[in-house]
Amino acid sequence: MYRSHSCGELRITDTNQDVTLAGWVQKSRDKGFMVWVDLRDRYGITQLIFDESRTDAAVIQQAKSLGREFVIQVRGTVIERESKNNNMPTGDIEVLVKELTVLNSSEVPPFTIEDDTDGGEDIRMKYRYLDIRRNPVKNSLLFRHKVTQEVRNYLSNLDFCEVETPYLIKSTPEGARDFIVPSRMNPGQFYALPQSPQTFKQLLMVAGMDRYFQIVKCFRDEDLRADRQPEFTQIDCEMSFIEQEDILDVFEGLTRHLLKSIHQLDVEKFPRMTFDEAMRRYGNDKPDIRFGMEFGELNAVAQQKEFSVFNNAELVVGIAVPQAAGYTRKQIDELIEWVKRPQVGASGMVYCKCEADGTFKSSVDKFYDQEDLANWAKATGARAGDLILILSGPAYKTRTQLSALRMELGNRLGLRKPHEFAPLWVIDFPLLEWDEDTARFHAMHHPFTSPKQEDMHLLDSEPGKVRANAYDLVLNGNEIGGGSIRIHDKETQALMFRHLGFTAEEAQEQFGFLMNAFQYGAPPHGGLAFGLDRLTAILGGQETIRDYIAFPKNNSGRDVMIDAPSAIATSQLDELSIAVQAP
Amino acid sequence: MYRSHSCGELRITDTNQDVTLAGWVQKSRDKGFMVWVDLRDRYGITQLIFDESRTDAAVIQQAKSLGREFVIQVRGTVIERESKNNNMPTGDIEVLVKELTVLNSSEVPPFTIEDDTDGGEDIRMKYRYLDIRRNPVKNSLLFRHKVTQEVRNYLSNLDFCEVETPYLIKSTPEGARDFIVPSRMNPGQFYALPQSPQTFKQLLMVAGMDRYFQIVKCFRDEDLRADRQPEFTQIDCEMSFIEQEDILDVFEGLTRHLLKSIHQLDVEKFPRMTFDEAMRRYGNDKPDIRFGMEFGELNAVAQQKEFSVFNNAELVVGIAVPQAAGYTRKQIDELIEWVKRPQVGASGMVYCKCEADGTFKSSVDKFYDQEDLANWAKATGARAGDLILILSGPAYKTRTQLSALRMELGNRLGLRKPHEFAPLWVIDFPLLEWDEDTARFHAMHHPFTSPKQEDMHLLDSEPGKVRANAYDLVLNGNEIGGGSIRIHDKETQALMFRHLGFTAEEAQEQFGFLMNAFQYGAPPHGGLAFGLDRLTAILGGQETIRDYIAFPKNNSGRDVMIDAPSAIATSQLDELSIAVQAP
Repeated sequence: MYRSHSCGELRITDTNQDVTLAGWVQKSRDKGFMVWVDLRDRYGITQLIFDESRTDAAVIQQAKSLGREFVIQVRGTVIERESKNNNMPTGDIEVLVKELTVLNSSEVPPFTIEDDTDGGEDIRMKYRYLDIRRNPVKNSLLFRHKVTQEVRNYLSNLDFCEVETPYLIKSTPEGARDFIVPSRMNPGQFYALPQSPQTFKQLLMVAGMDRYFQIVKCFRDEDLRADRQPEFTQIDCEMSFIEQEDILDVFEGLTRHLLKSIHQLDVEKFPRMTFDEAMRRYGNDKPDIRFGMEFGELNAVAQQKEFSVFNNAELVVGIAVPQAAGYTRKQIDELIEWVKRPQVGASGMVYCKCEADGTFKSSVDKFYDQEDLANWAKATGARAGDLILILSGPAYKTRTQLSALRMELGNRLGLRKPHEFAPLWVIDFPLLEWDEDTARFHAMHHPFTSPKQEDMHLLDSEPGKVRANAYDLVLNGNEIGGGSIRIHDKETQALMFRHLGFTAEEAQEQFGFLMNAFQYGAPPHGGLAFGLDRLTAILGGQETIRDYIAFPKNNSGRDVMIDAPSAIATSQLDELSIAVQAP
Repeated sequence: MYRSHSCGELRITDTNQDVTLAGWVQKSRDKGFMVWVDLRDRYGITQLIFDESRTDAAVIQQAKSLGREFVIQVRGTVIERESKNNNMPTGDIEVLVKELTVLNSSEVPPFTIEDDTDGGEDIRMKYRYLDIRRNPVKNSLLFRHKVTQEVRNYLSNLDFCEVETPYLIKSTPEGARDFIVPSRMNPGQFYALPQSPQTFKQLLMVAGMDRYFQIVKCFRDEDLRADRQPEFTQIDCEMSFIEQEDILDVFEGLTRHLLKSIHQLDVEKFPRMTFDEAMRRYGNDKPDIRFGMEFGELNAVAQQKEFSVFNNAELVVGIAVPQAAGYTRKQIDELIEWVKRPQVGASGMVYCKCEADGTFKSSVDKFYDQEDLANWAKATGARAGDLILILSGPAYKTRTQLSALRMELGNRLGLRKPHEFAPLWVIDFPLLEWDEDTARFHAMHHPFTSPKQEDMHLLDSEPGKVRANAYDLVLNGNEIGGGSIRIHDKETQALMFRHLGFTAEEAQEQFGFLMNAFQYGAPPHGGLAFGLDRLTAILGGQETIRDYIAFPKNNSGRDVMIDAPSAIATSQLDELSIAVQAP
């Protein structure tokens, strides 16, 4: 037996017990006649004491030679501490050591194994196995496990069945780029890694499996933006014989269960908002509704005067920043510069201070009188002491810019409280979106999403106006889940492919197996997928996912710890009938 | 709402209730004035009745036009059946239909959706989404879900933490062939798909994560023998600060829990057997101990006479087939032909009948007298009425041949009862095994397995005799799990690589990240992995895994349903800087 107890377990009631502990040396203090060592394992830290008057001289000598992160095993007796430490669960006791065995030594680690480490991102990724020893990362991984267990148990109790779908599937050109896998047994042919189990879960519905779920890795070979990973994990779900309301009900229940079981929070019925409303009120299809600063449209009250910038704009829209009327010129200029950054892209910004005395002071006073500005305040919901910030231009672009500003201010003003949770359903997404690059419509969700029956007549005339039976679950300004009611008949599916620019042959070639399956009694079905990495991070009160993934890749898709990807032997390529070749 | 109840739910107590059901038409009977339809969903079958005197004429007409596998929705009233069917849970009632909606039609399926289908393996694989509608496959998938849920809950309750390790890793030449994945962002470089998360779970131990598990897909690009899949699922586990006994204890507990929770079986403490003993007693390192026919070694009692075949053999070994002394000459000849098949490879077989009257009759009577044969009976444990079958030749090969015969006879005699479970630990595996092809030693388990301390002195002189701290969990003649205590210090690991024929550079190149990690305080650790596909099949009382995998591949590694792998566009290859090229 390497240990009788973990390092997080001993309490004052264990006093006088003989124990064996094992773990890592967190730190040690050498006072000559006494040595203290903090011994750490996954479960906590226990203080060890080596005392000249009570411990063998040889053992004390050994203790003095221990370095940080040495792995040791000790035998000793639990005693009450003289100076207790209330900040740690084992803080009432220490273990008076009688025997010490060094199980393994350690080089000096390249950064400190502390909550606040001195190691930068790169070095911590290279030595991820040391980074995980730190509480913030370790606890994130334990937290992730708890979340996934809660998800699995909740869904299993509702008769959902987890089915594993294959990883070696067929490449389809729709959507993001596939990772591909050459087949040795089928020379010149390739598998693809799944971007999602979408078609398989639909086939499972055709197969009558009804309530399906799977927590599953998915793969996208996209250029990595910050906080995106080439492999990521989804909670993938699908149900048969359901309508949108059924899906929303089940997964609202799941999310409520997570908030309750993990944070002991009771959450009201989730609000719902159409895509159009979300765009109008927040300029964003995943609004953070933990705070206000809702958009006020000012066209009606700002376009009647001589200010041509506003008059020529499709949209004039503002937000009221609470209690910011006192901002200095410098502070306001900085905000103007912020929205003019290329990442945001506004050409300028108008402001209006709502002074405490009820008067207004704006950057466009020569065009607007106090009454005009009072109307702006009314439209944006600004109150005395608030600062109104206004952008103008093409509607979609301007809303997106103002949304970015709203989120930035939400962060700066501390309004995005990590441990407050505001879920929201966004529904009625457009079926199609116009893609400037390819000059054609793309499926906004995916090509299997069903159009709203009542909008079908617009499919030829105004395809951009057709709404889908598609919905996103938004939490604190992040899309944590999204899904749709699927098409379940072959004719509608063929119609969709046609509208997405596929020829009948291309559609058959790429999705033939699904369309064929639809001939044999496909039930009405729909589903949803959560992004587990992000869901976990947000539930954990974090914005970045990296600590919630044990071995993440960097922005070039590299695992710097194991040094992958890497070159491989030509013989290996030969066996696969491929060769490296610059394009 | 598509349904108020599932098709498996209604009982006599629901009589007179108005209900809505949805599902597939299993079959229908048309008696003119009455039509019965069996409506099926995942949960069961409910009988519908359309009755001229109580159902609208139009609805009856609709019902008459329904084909098999049509998807329908009905509204009606639960009534008591006149002729009840005790074989189905809903057999006391039927639903008198008032309204019928056809949700989707169906072509005639290419095989019958019945427990005993008329469809062959190939057609069922092509239409796997129809095959899954059949109870044997559907129930296997539901069973698999139950097993994995039990595994996860059991391990989680023991503080095991499920950690997802990456799928895009680094190719290493050790072991089976890797599937590889070209990296677009790193031209000329490749990821590999993991054959197992072995190194990552060891790194998690170095990282202090202690009790880890993961239910995870693994990949091997091997030529597929029957019942092997290129992607398969492991229950992968690892623990720190443990000895072999701790691991055996935890995973014996897990297996016992599965047998209890799934089959309500209480199993005794699992027997243990060394590799040597298993080979001696059963000629097999995964013996099926549900039945006897243990090996009796006959060298001492068969090599003293004039029979040169036995005298020249390294090993003479037999088994006693119970109550088979009455076999005809023809039956025995068939068995002799069976062991001479190339798959078994024996050159001949000697037999000895133990007659009911206590006399013996053998095929080598001219060399051996009754007393000799009585000694054979003693050595093989044969009793009056048994048939002794004897092979001879080189020890290892002969044992393997006799083991094949023993298993065949076990099957023929019905001794391998599918719902009897006989778990067994096989321990003390050899560290290394000689590979004839490459003329060098290979790691029997893998190169991270620790040698037994007491055998280390043999590593240079008799490497084949060094035993490892390695163990397999065997269930009903199948290896369902295997693992080892790992090497946790850099020196021993380097020594192992040297003995496996790696140069220091090769070892550093391929396993540098693990050896580096060992410098920073690696704890003693070890673990085990179960093959989930096989474990589930065996727990389900089956020998083949295919029904327990939703979408299996065929023996050429093809998914015939989606037609993968397949050729891909040259533009896609260009982006990846690779080209197809015959070797």
